[in-house]
Order: sequence, then structure tokens, then C-alpha cells
Amino acid sequence: ETIHKTAEMFGAAHRWGPKPEDTGVTRLALSDFDKGVKEWFIKEVKSLGCTVKIDEVGNIFATYPGKNNSAPATGIGSHLDTQPTGGRYDGIFGVLSGLQVLRTLKQNNYVPNYPITLVDWCNEEGARFPMSIMASSVWAGINTKEEVYALKDVFDDKTTVLDELKRIGFQGPEHCSHDSNPLKCHFEMHIEQGPVLENTNKKIGVLIGAQAYRWLYVTMKGMAQHTGSTPMEYRRDALFATSKVMVGINSIARKYGGVASVGKMSETPNVVNVIPGTVKFVIDIRNHTDEGLEKMYKEIMQLIENSVKNEEGNGISVEATVENPFPIPATYFNKDLISIIESSADDIVGPQYVHKMMSGAGHDSCATNTVIPTAMIFVPSKDGVSHNPREYTSPEELEAGFQVLLETVLRYDQV
Amino acid sequence: ETIHKTAEMFGAAHRWGPKPEDTGVTRLALSDFDKGVKEWFIKEVKSLGCTVKIDEVGNIFATYPGKNNSAPATGIGSHLDTQPTGGRYDGIFGVLSGLQVLRTLKQNNYVPNYPITLVDWCNEEGARFPMSIMASSVWAGINTKEEVYALKDVFDDKTTVLDELKRIGFQGPEHCSHDSNPLKCHFEMHIEQGPVLENTNKKIGVLIGAQAYRWLYVTMKGMAQHTGSTPMEYRRDALFATSKVMVGINSIARKYGGVASVGKMSETPNVVNVIPGTVKFVIDIRNHTDEGLEKMYKEIMQLIENSVKNEEGNGISVEATVENPFPIPATYFNKDLISIIESSADDIVGPQYVHKMMSGAGHDSCATNTVIPTAMIFVPSKDGVSHNPREYTSPEELEAGFQVLLETVLRYDQV
Ligand SMILES: NC(=O)NCCC(=O)O
Ligand SMILES: NC(=O)NCCC(=O)O
Repeated sequence: ETIHKTAEMFGAAHRWGPKPEDTGVTRLALSDFDKGVKEWFIKEVKSLGCTVKIDEVGNIFATYPGKNNSAPATGIGSHLDTQPTGGRYDGIFGVLSGLQVLRTLKQNNYVPNYPITLVDWCNEEGARFPMSIMASSVWAGINTKEEVYALKDVFDDKTTVLDELKRIGFQGPEHCSHDSNPLKCHFEMHIEQGPVLENTNKKIGVLIGAQAYRWLYVTMKGMAQHTGSTPMEYRRDALFATSKVMVGINSIARKYGGVASVGKMSETPNVVNVIPGTVKFVIDIRNHTDEGLEKMYKEIMQLIENSVKNEEGNGISVEATVENPFPIPATYFNKDLISIIESSADDIVGPQYVHKMMSGAGHDSCATNTVIPTAMIFVPSKDGVSHNPREYTSPEELEAGFQVLLETVLRYDQV
Repeated sequence: ETIHKTAEMFGAAHRWGPKPEDTGVTRLALSDFDKGVKEWFIKEVKSLGCTVKIDEVGNIFATYPGKNNSAPATGIGSHLDTQPTGGRYDGIFGVLSGLQVLRTLKQNNYVPNYPITLVDWCNEEGARFPMSIMASSVWAGINTKEEVYALKDVFDDKTTVLDELKRIGFQGPEHCSHDSNPLKCHFEMHIEQGPVLENTNKKIGVLIGAQAYRWLYVTMKGMAQHTGSTPMEYRRDALFATSKVMVGINSIARKYGGVASVGKMSETPNVVNVIPGTVKFVIDIRNHTDEGLEKMYKEIMQLIENSVKNEEGNGISVEATVENPFPIPATYFNKDLISIIESSADDIVGPQYVHKMMSGAGHDSCATNTVIPTAMIFVPSKDGVSHNPREYTSPEELEAGFQVLLETVLRYDQV
């Protein structure tokens, strides 16, 4: 109910079916809808008796008191921002299932041994401001706040993270750091965003880690010329060179058991009878291991070098530059936390419905895992669809995930 | 001087060097700058004693009187609109060298036997409204005025040709037809827009015809999904399918001695970590013969069919639709007019500097040639560059072209 209520209030978009909830959500990081959901979230957790801290990079920490409030809290977290054509569950279910845990404690007047902190991490998607897992990475000390303040909106190439934090009033007073604002551990619930749980008929994924990934920002500079009067051997076609790269990365990904694709690109001048002079595009490459990713990276760099050569075999036809900021290494979660999740899941849905797996996507937990014990829980995604308005997980599947999260948090609190 | 004066007044843009004239021109068809240059043109020809007709599709006919004013006029024409990142010469030199012919007659008090009509054809480029050679094609009866009125601005997908003709006041009273508003013949001067004249050290190109071409509008529909969590074998990547097509057309063009490229494309949702669900792009294919173009077309349709298959070899991963409106057949100009141009050019620059050739680009002359005797003259383009702000032809080369045009028109008027 809370998932659908907040979707409707803050960014419901891209209707794909007749029922009220048959839409996706467009709630870009630091937009007005993101401001709205953040304010709603704060009101909601305060009504449960939580204290709230907002840090200087827009993260919100809501702490439910326990018996020993001087000890660092058990953390639960995920994100409330979405893709431009996002769904209702990605990130959102993580924060709202955490909220449901707090509501359940409150309803049952249950006081945990230690405080529990629910976190809404700011800009996990990286769709508007081009760094995924942004504010949790600052908290973990992986990137600096100066680096993220300067990131520019990819849609207008102008507005910065700092501009928007100030505008929506979410540049908080708390220092963004795991040192000064610590958590004892981090649990994250998420939709799988892939087809594995559904295809193997599982209800709960227990995550052992997450893929390494990199975003390679490539610029190809050729020469804008007439498509009709420029013979093939005189062309310096930036889009033709780009096409060869986009075809080649597919087989490189398959060769190393990883994934690779181009999601974002732009051409200049982008006119039917002009050979593209400049093409910019971003290659997203991922692999289960850092070594596998490094091999893919090296082969792709070689592929780019070959693709800019002219077809006549006597030189370069296009100039390529490649930038590779903020690589995310492979993540391996904490073994103790994994076994608490696994035993909770076994007890709640039965071991035959529990699957141990790696995450294909990056998550805030990849950042927290570098500084504190971290682990994650997955629920199935219908048809493996995500980053799409048709994202769907059934109420029963969401319920099972919530039960596992609640049980996990209570067991952790005990030990 | 007139070339640079009008460039500065109507759309100078994209500076590439320090001199005042080191810019291109952005004067999209039916924009405010196009309105401005049209109004300037009318004032200019009226000052030479021309009568002016504006037709219902925005063509302007300026008629300089001769001795027999009831006979149809000798035509000279080209276009004053440009590419979004266009140069100072493409089309513009054709109209302004025609203007210089009329000025020369006037200055010398020379009265030709027959009237001479200088035409500014509306929307030759097809860059804003996606039909090249637009209004000359209506005049020639190839397309209807209703078809062109309905064309939409590719940049906003909303504003029509009719909207803009009305807005800038250039939907004239004259019926757009070679029947009711005839010309006896059509001469067109143009920059080559390719490297052939420069590389063979020639000053004048005498055109025997122009390539056939088609613009294939392709839509690829796959599925927007997460780049990280969607295994390669589950993807329906519209951009990957597109890349295979963009690579393949290059070798098909070379195989048949034609040209092929993609200049315009768009991806949805165009986000770094989302596999593109939909890609739209336009393939521009050209060949010296209709048969050659048909072979390229058939092979490209087969290529598209193969490119949408999945890599697993068990089905289609992406749906493709292809539209192919307004194909332009190969053009072969009038032999009598060609020999008048050739003998004029031989006498003025010397036969060793004259080259007979096909045009790589389409021109308004391709439309007029279907209903009246037509021929064309080319001057060199530095480095073969066109559809680019750096388009350049030296004053001496322009002067030689003008001399040949003047001589040609006077000799035609005699016979
Ligand atoms: N879970 C998720 O969609 N994260 C965004 C970062 C990524 O592309 O993996
Ligand atoms: N000459 C010229 O650039 N014409 C535009 C139509 C084409 O693309 O050939």
C-alpha cells in the first residue's frame, strides 16, 4: 500500500496498463519529486519516534531507539530515487520494507537491544547525475563530497548536485562520513532486476556479492560531411567507428561471462544527410570478478583502437578518447550477515525457495560493504524486467521479502 | 561580397577561424533567417527591375524581362536554406551567382531575347522538414503540396511546413506547378560538396547527372532493461541490432560503388544503465544508377532482417520497421544544355580544367529535370567538405563559376 501511495504522490509516470498501479515512476535524484518523497519519509519516521539526521550530501538517517542507544545502530538502507523511466520497486522497496520493519516494532511495542537506523541514500541510480551509488560512496569514503557536488545533470549539462541539494533544502548539517556518523552493519532488501529467481522458481535471493562494473565515456571525433557527395574512402564517420565498437563489445562480454552495452549516446550534428562528426557514448561493462572486468576492459580498449582505423588500412579515420571515472570493484558481502539472512530465509520460505547469488546491478551496499559488515536480500522481478515502468514483484513476494528482512534484523539484534 | 554580407545578416554561426567570414550559416528552411533572406532577395531583384511571383509552397520566381516576354523564361535556380551546421556556399552560391548574372545584364543595359527567371527553391536541404528538394518537387509534380504541407519539423516533431509558411508570410498566391508557372529550362550552379574537382585539379564540373538516393527510416523496438542484471541471452537490445546494421551498410555501399551512412538517430530512454528499448535512425543510401541503388536497398533489407535475430540463433530479439518515402531516382541531365555549359567552360577556363561528372548530392535540378531541360555547373569544394561550417570555395573559383554561368545563359538565350 505504501509503495503505491508514494508512487502516486511522487512521480507516477509512463502508464502501461489499466489498473491505477500500472505505471512506472520518474523520480530523478534531487528533483522536486525526490524532495517530496524525502519530506514524506521524514514525517513518517518521526511519527514512529525516530530521530532524524540529514547529512551534507542528502542522505537521511532515521534512528529507531533500542535499549542501548549509545552503541552504533543496526543499519537498513536503500534509495528512493528512480530512473527516468523507472519502476515502482527498484530501491523503493528497500527503504519501504525497512520502514515496515520499524512500523512492526512500534505496533508490537518491541524494543530492540540496539537502535536501528533506516537510511535513504541519495542518488543511487546515477541516471541524472552520472555517478551511481553516489552519496553512500561519500559516506564510505570512496569519493569526496567535492567530487559529487560538482557532478552535472546529464540532461542540461549545467545544474550541479550542489545546486540541487541547496534548492530542495537537503544539504544537511551532518558530516557525511561513516566515521562521525557510523552504522554497525548494513542490510539492504532489493528487487533482483534480473530473471534468475523467477526462472529457478525461488522466492528469496541471498546475496554473496555484486558484480564489478565500469562506465567508459567515449568520444569519437571524425568530420561532419555530406552523405551523398563524400566517397566512402574520404569519410571520417564517427558513427561508423562507434558502431564497430558497439558490435564488438557484445562478443567480448560473452567471451568473459560478463555483460556490456551502450545505453546512452549522442550524435552531432544529427541530421539525415550529414555524416556524424562527433559521437559521444557510454559503455557499461560488468563482470563477477575484477580480473574478468579488467580483461574485458583491455579488450575493449583494443577494439576501440581498431575501430577508429579507416577501412582502406592506411591510417586513422576518427579520434577516440576514453574516460573511466568511478570504477566499482566486485563486492563480496560479510559471511556472518549472509548466514543470518540465509537461516532466516530458510525458516520463513523453506530452503528449497532460497537461492544464493551475485547481484548483477550495483547497490548502496557495495559502498557500505567497504567499511562495515553488509549483506543483501533479493525478491524476484517479473520477466527479469527493471529500469522500466513495467517492473513488477507480486504482493506475496514482497511480503516474503519483508518477513525475511524483519527476522534478519531481529536475529542480528540478538547476537 | 554578397555571399558574406547575407551570411552575416541571416544566420552566421559556428565560428571556426578568426576572420569575419570564418563561420558557417544556420538558416533552416522557413525559419526567421530564411524569411529574412527571402525578403532581402525580393528587394534586391526588384531593384534590378524584376517582377516577382511567390508560390503556395514558398518558391520565389524573379523574372528579368527580355525582348519576348510572352515566351517562357530561361531558368536559373538553387536554394538559400542551409543545414543546421551548414556552410556559406551550399545552394547560396547558386542563387547569388544567378543574381550576379542579372546584375551584370542590368549594369550593361543588356536586354536578352527571352526573359530570365531566377528561382529560390524552398527547403532543398530537407534537414528541418524531412524531404530534400521539397518545393521544386511540388513544382515538378513529383510530390503534392498536401504531402509537403504536412511534413513535421524533425526537431520538435510538431510544427508543420504549412504552419511555418503561414507564420513567415511565404504561402504565396501563385499555384506551385510547372504547368501554370512554366520555365523553358533550368540551370543550376553549385559547389561540388565532394573532393573530386580539387583532387583532379579542375575548375569547373559539367554535370551529366546526379546519384539516385533513398532515406530509409528504421525503427528498432526491443526492451528497456537493466544493463547490469540482465544476462546477455535475455537482452532485447535495440541499439545492438542497430549497430549491426550500421556496420553492415558500409560494406554494402562499397560492394556496389555507392555510399551509405546513418546521420540521424535517437535512442530511448538514453540512460547509461538502461539497455535501449527503442532506436530510430535514418539510413541514407546512394548510387549512380537506379539498379545499383535497388541492389543496395535489397541487401540492406536483408541485413536488417538478420540483425534483429538474437545471438543465440533461436529467434528475433528486436522488431524492425522500415519506411522509405520520397525516393529520388538517378538523374541524367539534358544533352543540349550540357554541351552549352561544356563549350562555355572550355572557352572560359580552358578544356584541361573542365571535368564531366555525376553529382553525389541531390539538387533542385533533379526535380526540374523531370519536366524541363536541365543541367548543372560545379565549382570545387576545399577538402571536399560540405554540410559543415568549414565549407570553402575561393573567390577565384567562384568567379570562374559565375563566368561560366553567365556565358551559358547568354549562349542559351541566343539559340
Ligand atoms: N540497482 C540499480 O539499478 N543500481 C543502479 C546502478 C547500476 O547501474 O547498477
Ligand atoms: N546539395 C545538397 O546538399 N542537397 C541536399 C539533398 C541531399 O542530401 O543530397
